Amino acid sequence: PDWAPMARDGVLQLERVYKFKNFKQAWAFANKVAELAEAEFHHPGILMEWGKVTVTWWTHAIGGLHRNDFIMAAKTDQLL
Amino acid sequence: PDWAPMARDGVLQLERVYKFKNFKQAWAFANKVAELAEAEFHHPGILMEWGKVTVTWWTHAIGGLHRNDFIMAAKTDQLL
Repeated sequence: PDWAPMARDGVLQLERVYKFKNFKQAWAFANKVAELAEAEFHHPGILMEWGKVTVTWWTHAIGGLHRNDFIMAAKTDQLL
Repeated sequence: PDWAPMARDGVLQLERVYKFKNFKQAWAFANKVAELAEAEFHHPGILMEWGKVTVTWWTHAIGGLHRNDFIMAAKTDQLL
């Protein structure tokens, strides 16, 4: 359960699944990630489901991964 | 831009993409959907991205679509 590079529709992305005990905890974490995204003005995909949140970082402008995405991934881990 | 049935990993789901002008509006809508999910204790997938939210309803217990998912889809539309 760590960050993994994924190619989706030809775009390289960095993705991690975070597990939680219920929806409420997943929701709270998703909101923290959304706050970080707005603060840095770099926006990932945030998928919340019952008991898990999937976060996907990539850089729209280059259609792939930039050094900043790896920094954002590390910052996301710090929100746990 | 309406609800469409999708088969994902063999599970039939009902999915709709809602477009917004920015991340903040998408985030606010995602939170409304999360509130509805907790209130009804039926939990969809909620994917928030810059300018859009993808909501996916299905019933875990039956691995597919139940009448209730269509009702939840209609309730989701009312949150707009």
